[in-house]
Amino acid sequence: MNSSFSTIALIGKHKNPEIAIPLLNLAEYLTAKNYTVLLDHLTASQIGSDKYPVLTLEDIGAQADLAVVMGGDGTMLNIARMLVSYDVPLIGINQGRLGFLTDLSVDTMFASLDEILAENYITERRMLLYAEIIRDGVSVFGSLAFNDVVLYRGMSSGMIEFEVRVNSEYVNTLRADGLIVTTPTGSTAYALSSGGPILHPGLDLIALVPVCPHTLSNRPIVIGPEAIVEIQIQSCANVRINCDSHSCFDLDLTDSIIVRRFPKTVRLLHSVNHSYYRMLREKLGWSEFP
Amino acid sequence: MNSSFSTIALIGKHKNPEIAIPLLNLAEYLTAKNYTVLLDHLTASQIGSDKYPVLTLEDIGAQADLAVVMGGDGTMLNIARMLVSYDVPLIGINQGRLGFLTDLSVDTMFASLDEILAENYITERRMLLYAEIIRDGVSVFGSLAFNDVVLYRGMSSGMIEFEVRVNSEYVNTLRADGLIVTTPTGSTAYALSSGGPILHPGLDLIALVPVCPHTLSNRPIVIGPEAIVEIQIQSCANVRINCDSHSCFDLDLTDSIIVRRFPKTVRLLHSVNHSYYRMLREKLGWSEFP
Amino acid sequence: MNSSFSTIALIGKHKNPEIAIPLLNLAEYLTAKNYTVLLDHLTASQIGSDKYPVLTLEDIGAQADLAVVMGGDGTMLNIARMLVSYDVPLIGINQGRLGFLTDLSVDTMFASLDEILAENYITERRMLLYAEIIRDGVSVFGSLAFNDVVLYRGMSSGMIEFEVRVNSEYVNTLRADGLIVTTPTGSTAYALSSGGPILHPGLDLIALVPVCPHTLSNRPIVIGPEAIVEIQIQSCANVRINCDSHSCFDLDLTDSIIVRRFPKTVRLLHSVNHSYYRMLREKLGWSEFP
Amino acid sequence: MNSSFSTIALIGKHKNPEIAIPLLNLAEYLTAKNYTVLLDHLTASQIGSDKYPVLTLEDIGAQADLAVVMGGDGTMLNIARMLVSYDVPLIGINQGRLGFLTDLSVDTMFASLDEILAENYITERRMLLYAEIIRDGVSVFGSLAFNDVVLYRGMSSGMIEFEVRVNSEYVNTLRADGLIVTTPTGSTAYALSSGGPILHPGLDLIALVPVCPHTLSNRPIVIGPEAIVEIQIQSCANVRINCDSHSCFDLDLTDSIIVRRFPKTVRLLHSVNHSYYRMLREKLGWSEFP
Repeated sequence: MNSSFSTIALIGKHKNPEIAIPLLNLAEYLTAKNYTVLLDHLTASQIGSDKYPVLTLEDIGAQADLAVVMGGDGTMLNIARMLVSYDVPLIGINQGRLGFLTDLSVDTMFASLDEILAENYITERRMLLYAEIIRDGVSVFGSLAFNDVVLYRGMSSGMIEFEVRVNSEYVNTLRADGLIVTTPTGSTAYALSSGGPILHPGLDLIALVPVCPHTLSNRPIVIGPEAIVEIQIQSCANVRINCDSHSCFDLDLTDSIIVRRFPKTVRLLHSVNHSYYRMLREKLGWSEFP
Repeated sequence: MNSSFSTIALIGKHKNPEIAIPLLNLAEYLTAKNYTVLLDHLTASQIGSDKYPVLTLEDIGAQADLAVVMGGDGTMLNIARMLVSYDVPLIGINQGRLGFLTDLSVDTMFASLDEILAENYITERRMLLYAEIIRDGVSVFGSLAFNDVVLYRGMSSGMIEFEVRVNSEYVNTLRADGLIVTTPTGSTAYALSSGGPILHPGLDLIALVPVCPHTLSNRPIVIGPEAIVEIQIQSCANVRINCDSHSCFDLDLTDSIIVRRFPKTVRLLHSVNHSYYRMLREKLGWSEFP
Repeated sequence: MNSSFSTIALIGKHKNPEIAIPLLNLAEYLTAKNYTVLLDHLTASQIGSDKYPVLTLEDIGAQADLAVVMGGDGTMLNIARMLVSYDVPLIGINQGRLGFLTDLSVDTMFASLDEILAENYITERRMLLYAEIIRDGVSVFGSLAFNDVVLYRGMSSGMIEFEVRVNSEYVNTLRADGLIVTTPTGSTAYALSSGGPILHPGLDLIALVPVCPHTLSNRPIVIGPEAIVEIQIQSCANVRINCDSHSCFDLDLTDSIIVRRFPKTVRLLHSVNHSYYRMLREKLGWSEFP
Repeated sequence: MNSSFSTIALIGKHKNPEIAIPLLNLAEYLTAKNYTVLLDHLTASQIGSDKYPVLTLEDIGAQADLAVVMGGDGTMLNIARMLVSYDVPLIGINQGRLGFLTDLSVDTMFASLDEILAENYITERRMLLYAEIIRDGVSVFGSLAFNDVVLYRGMSSGMIEFEVRVNSEYVNTLRADGLIVTTPTGSTAYALSSGGPILHPGLDLIALVPVCPHTLSNRPIVIGPEAIVEIQIQSCANVRINCDSHSCFDLDLTDSIIVRRFPKTVRLLHSVNHSYYRMLREKLGWSEFP
């Protein structure tokens, strides 16, 4: 070992027995090179080994110099939200088709890790959002979002209506299926299906992307990272929010949602030949083009 | 009275006390001209008069030569579905902003009706859809739709996945927020917000409009009226359908939805200077154009 | 030979020497089976054989029972427009990636043809458009279009403005890059890139698809095949039309364009396992979907 | 006069005689208050007065403390490009419907100006682009763009093909009608009609918006202001660029276009109750919404 990353946490996708073998191989590989390997409880119970210290994610955040996440982009979203306050750099390894966030293949993971541990890597900082729900003046819900905060109609069959303000300034009243408040990371997820633009992940930006708006000129708006977005529900039907398709919360008619940038960023490490545009071409089918 | 429409039903929007006066005025106006006026129970209870026979909608369907619907397009959708089997011609009167289906203004309703009763009108026939849900080989739900049959995710926060077949031929597997199966009438409603085309209402067509599809090339497809559309749910999350934002039904994983043209059509009467394109210009804001 | 198709024309893509060998092979194959093979002048000069009668396309139209077109969809569009008045059935053979209209592979062409010549095939009839330009009351241009009639700005850098009428009724005034009047066949070509719907090719329909309209609610409109579309230029900049990306014509300010259905249809023959939806999945990348 | 703006240039829309009276009124009003009024040659010849010094735009740039532009957004685009290097603050007065850049009404211009001259105003800095065409290693064209740099097909009837690079990294090969490289200011102009997002004008960003791309997943991409965009033509048909629908230039097959941020910004002054979102609501018809 000859690296600033002496303690490395391995975190696997939940309920996914297929990662046990590659994770164990990785743990042995790193241990043999004198790195200290840590596991979180869920990963440890999946791989069934008692050779490595098992910690909470909080303790991993405090102790690890690097966290290797094995799974898909959904797993990385979850772990990144949980570790963002500790500024632990993250690496994503994927067993299947590479993801935007899990961009190393399990097939070449030893070589990729060797290079990163030898301090050859690209660092990328990405912003997150923090959503809060204010009810009768009190915050009744709070959640981080790495991809997006999504306001949507739940069981109700009609459109929902809500007012949008940015930095206390009235923007518009939307009647729509919902609204996506997205980070650049989330811009290639649900927001893209709803007509939002691709935001380069190196930027600090927020996009407001209406979902199926009744007024056809209600187009996505890109605003700066310092913007405080406030959404005030106007219709009494079922309205919900979720953060990263997660942490759902049912809204009341008088609730307002506040979305702002989270002050800390996620630090992703990539191999030196990582290319965001190549990833876009592959994921969006551009590469088939003549 | 000198018209083939001797018996005229007046049907008002539910829970809308503002229509009582204009409906009573209309009833008196028609009675004075020797037309027979009928009311349905809900309308009668709203206007609080006992001067006119009160019938079920079924009996109105059987006895009326004409039904005048006062309300918005939502009211007309409901009444049209209920009366379609009786082939009673329908007229829509609107108190506020004119609708696509309720295109006569309450302000000029006497003159408009006089003209129609004098046999000066345009007749328009519009198709409906009939949706059925098949569970374990048995039909567990059936509903008419004048606008659209909408498959959508309910409380679930992710996309739903389903296979689409037309006339038993596999079309595609969609991962999306939902799918709209729309008539030409519904093409200017929810389907338009989801990127669907405007289908001239004089045509007999069905459009399949995906809502926020994951694959960006999953575009709306227009098929013929004889097509039998089958949707087979593939994901186990909450999935629902509704017909005209109405008649919701929760689906199980093994359910399939069959949508086909209903064999009868709605007959709408319009004043002779009715113009569908003018309506489009007004409703979609085209008229502001230089 | 035991087929109603005794005389078969072979027509190859222009300026494409690669088709010479497969066309010669096909000619020999058919001749050996006692079919009469005809060539048009351009194809004959490409393949350099004098063993087969060489005719004009008009004479081919009059004499052939079947025309086999080897090339891409562009070649088929051209030949179909030229032969449509003769009602000769058409088969398309493609050397590369299969097209919507050229759906037989050169690799399996003998087997495919054998089956079709044995009367096992699907017949599909497709509509065409006819565009005319009226200047000072006189028709100064006329052209068939199998895909689309496209109005567009030429060298000018701003939008063009024009009025649209359908069956003499005013629809709207558009300020846009252009307007596509498309058949179902053309709906998967340029119109799709401009936000138009996919129209099943078995339907007789016309779609009016604005290209980058200034007013965002100017959406595609689908109208019936009997519609007569009239476009009246309002802006004085360079405005042009083309038919199937072909037959360009520069318009004057007072010109109007009339587009209507051509009274005859193209007859395409497909192998019995042809599937339009499978073609869509392949061409639009739907098949990659999980 | 009690203002830091002692010398004020008045610049009117070309070939627009209607501005003569309001401009003369404005000149007298300012002169009476002891401001020095300057005119450019074209404006002076339009209003036909010899009471005020007449200068070139360059000299106006060097001498004026403030430039008042009377006309529409097109006029402001032109003047802003010409004065950007001098950092003269700009005010836009509109005779008709207010524009995004000309947001003061001629009807209230005295009051609006009084307030601004009394140092009550909002300052907004906006970025511009600079486009260059490189042919055989030499720059053969250069132009500023306040809205957008647009690559488009000229007379040709098919799509054009080109490669896009950002900071020398390959992004994709597009087959499309064109590509719009837009500033936030231009995001509500042509780019919006082509499916681009609205970029808040306070941001320094560049959006790459494909026009009718053949591959439907080729969506707009938002990149940072330091990005150097390179476009390399791949098809030999007519290809042109323009800047702000202006300064057209015909491209050769081997040309490449370089677009980057211009190092200086335009300084716009607005009245203190100016609201960008209200402007959006009015211009895009959001305000009609319930």
